[in-house]
Amino acid sequence: MPIDPKRVVSNLQELRALTADSSGAQRVAWSAMWLKAQAWFETKLRDLPVEKHYDASGNLWITLRGRSEKALLLGGHLDSVPNGGWLDGCLGVLTSLEILRGIAEDFKGIPPVTIRLVDWADEEGARFGRSLFGSSAFAGTHTIAADRGRTDHDGTRLEDALRECGFDVEKIGDATKEQAHAAAYLELHIEQGPVLEQLQLPLGVVLGTKGVERHVITFLGQEAHSGSTPMAVRRDALAAAAKLALEIRPIALAHADSVATMGSVKTFPGIVTAVVGRCETTLDMRDLNADVLAQMFADAMVASERFAAEENCSVEWSRIWSIEPVPFHPELIELCDAAIRETAGASHRLPSGPLHDAAEVARAGIPTVMMFAQSLAGLSHNKAEDTKIEHIELAGQAFDNLARKAMRWIAR
Amino acid sequence: MPIDPKRVVSNLQELRALTADSSGAQRVAWSAMWLKAQAWFETKLRDLPVEKHYDASGNLWITLRGRSEKALLLGGHLDSVPNGGWLDGCLGVLTSLEILRGIAEDFKGIPPVTIRLVDWADEEGARFGRSLFGSSAFAGTHTIAADRGRTDHDGTRLEDALRECGFDVEKIGDATKEQAHAAAYLELHIEQGPVLEQLQLPLGVVLGTKGVERHVITFLGQEAHSGSTPMAVRRDALAAAAKLALEIRPIALAHADSVATMGSVKTFPGIVTAVVGRCETTLDMRDLNADVLAQMFADAMVASERFAAEENCSVEWSRIWSIEPVPFHPELIELCDAAIRETAGASHRLPSGPLHDAAEVARAGIPTVMMFAQSLAGLSHNKAEDTKIEHIELAGQAFDNLARKAMRWIAR
Repeated sequence: MPIDPKRVVSNLQELRALTADSSGAQRVAWSAMWLKAQAWFETKLRDLPVEKHYDASGNLWITLRGRSEKALLLGGHLDSVPNGGWLDGCLGVLTSLEILRGIAEDFKGIPPVTIRLVDWADEEGARFGRSLFGSSAFAGTHTIAADRGRTDHDGTRLEDALRECGFDVEKIGDATKEQAHAAAYLELHIEQGPVLEQLQLPLGVVLGTKGVERHVITFLGQEAHSGSTPMAVRRDALAAAAKLALEIRPIALAHADSVATMGSVKTFPGIVTAVVGRCETTLDMRDLNADVLAQMFADAMVASERFAAEENCSVEWSRIWSIEPVPFHPELIELCDAAIRETAGASHRLPSGPLHDAAEVARAGIPTVMMFAQSLAGLSHNKAEDTKIEHIELAGQAFDNLARKAMRWIAR
Repeated sequence: MPIDPKRVVSNLQELRALTADSSGAQRVAWSAMWLKAQAWFETKLRDLPVEKHYDASGNLWITLRGRSEKALLLGGHLDSVPNGGWLDGCLGVLTSLEILRGIAEDFKGIPPVTIRLVDWADEEGARFGRSLFGSSAFAGTHTIAADRGRTDHDGTRLEDALRECGFDVEKIGDATKEQAHAAAYLELHIEQGPVLEQLQLPLGVVLGTKGVERHVITFLGQEAHSGSTPMAVRRDALAAAAKLALEIRPIALAHADSVATMGSVKTFPGIVTAVVGRCETTLDMRDLNADVLAQMFADAMVASERFAAEENCSVEWSRIWSIEPVPFHPELIELCDAAIRETAGASHRLPSGPLHDAAEVARAGIPTVMMFAQSLAGLSHNKAEDTKIEHIELAGQAFDNLARKAMRWIAR
């Protein structure tokens, strides 16, 4: 039975009605609203011949056993950022559910390969700042030794929030057991960017997730009185930072798909009557090619040192976080491209700037690919996030097509 | 009796020992430490033939009655910023005290003109953000209708803080009574900038206080995901602000003594993973020439609109505060210049970038001039603020010289 895409849409709307307020979706991981979303989701499984359980890190696994233990994984995440959109994460989960339903019916409950649906825990990291929580536990790349002491805005520790949901921070590494027999992983997600909309294409195949270099860059000059300090003798930390804010753009534009963003600037003392003595900025750079990313990082560092010298300041770099580029599986990319073309007529290949659980699954060595559905105005992580209903339905059909191709690819 | 400059230094040191901690001076107006400084100061008046009273806005007046009611005013302020320096404000008060002591002795308690020492209340505005509080009440330029509801960090209202110190916010306008018979006003202050130090001159005569244009400039673009939004389609509010941060420098450098400062930049949402959708900056511009200041303001506004357009953003300006330039009295400038040359050998004429109570007194139509003593490294408003002891002593002698000249000028 092919997917019923209207059922995906009605489930998305039902979930929104249940877990969003006037500011948007409120399914922050480890919150009561997230647990409510999961409980609602479990009610949708009642008439399906599946097993379900939570792994040690909070990921929910729905297993439809097939003739082979080799498993096709389909995934997404029900958690959202605060004031989030109605599609980010849950589109993948709810589309996968309807595909699983169709496959179960087609094969009278026993498909040729095992089908597993996974709802990853805390993809967003919205509350504790640690994204891809459950998928990194699954992949064995988690950093719990560093993360366990993280606290939310109210001072609650990550490990205590886990305990309240029934999970033991000491044991999350046990989630790697779920890797057994995994033969492929597919994830449908909204693009969260403007590329497909500009191309007027509903769907795209994702080549991989870009590597990320994320740094705090602090310029140190000399705080001085804005009225009494002549321009010529100032050591203005903001001026050096402003030059870098502008220079990262040609650095990124030198490469095809690179992005570089200064997202935060903090000025100290930060008052109207003082020259900025210290300016703390953040830089986020991404590319799918590791060499390109390394070049951008080097270029930005050299530029920052030049600007610091020009302004008689000093500069310090501190890495917040980085991840290498994660290319997806070449054969699955071809299957995904074919599935999109067969369903929607035309396809487009693009890297993902945002990270996704799929990156962690691929890092675990499991063949992986993602499909993107067009986002309107490139908006995400807020209530204005949207995708045309016809594109949600097309995405369901193309993703169903891809899942069938992947089953055959695994069985082969 | 000429001034005893060593007594000024020992009084400054005594006041520091009494009202500073390891972070600097803590004589914030309307605080217990400020009241303690005033009480200490009053003990220094015991053996002087003077009257003292607080006016309706909290200014402390010490009056040595002369044969003429025409009065020479000498002033400064005992209040400091939090973690302030040991000279800002109190150098003027304590030097004036020793000059008054010498004049009282020379003329056996009855000088030819009346001498009045004033300790202005809340020059700094450190707690409620309203500087020149007492001197603007004296000048009749106060803005109490707008300021009475101001609150400090703890939520205490300005009018309640005044009441605790014994003053009624409704009556502060009565301070204008103190203008009666005022014939000249002299103020000694540290430069708080690097100009005299660079010229290797201990003292300078101040031509007036620069006019100030102080604005909040907000650039509005579009918040967007740092990973999924291609460089070419971004509407980065920070980029427009960065261009302005750099452009205000040539705008100021086009004029001899102009300054322009972007002291605060705030980014929204201000996170590492988002293109800045809104960037709120402050701009402070100063010049002694009103036409120059108006030109700088116009140039900055035109530039901001050009940068907003280039970055596909919009820009909004909101005036925080402005004041016209206040030139000091030409004859008193000559007297001050002569007094410095006679005492220190060489003088220098410079505008004041920082505002001072003297500007309010001049706005009241009272002939006014200020003398600056060299600051080390241009530092002020922190505990590193300093001036060489020999320069403090020279300043006392030159200011005494100026006071004697001004008495003769008034009597003439």
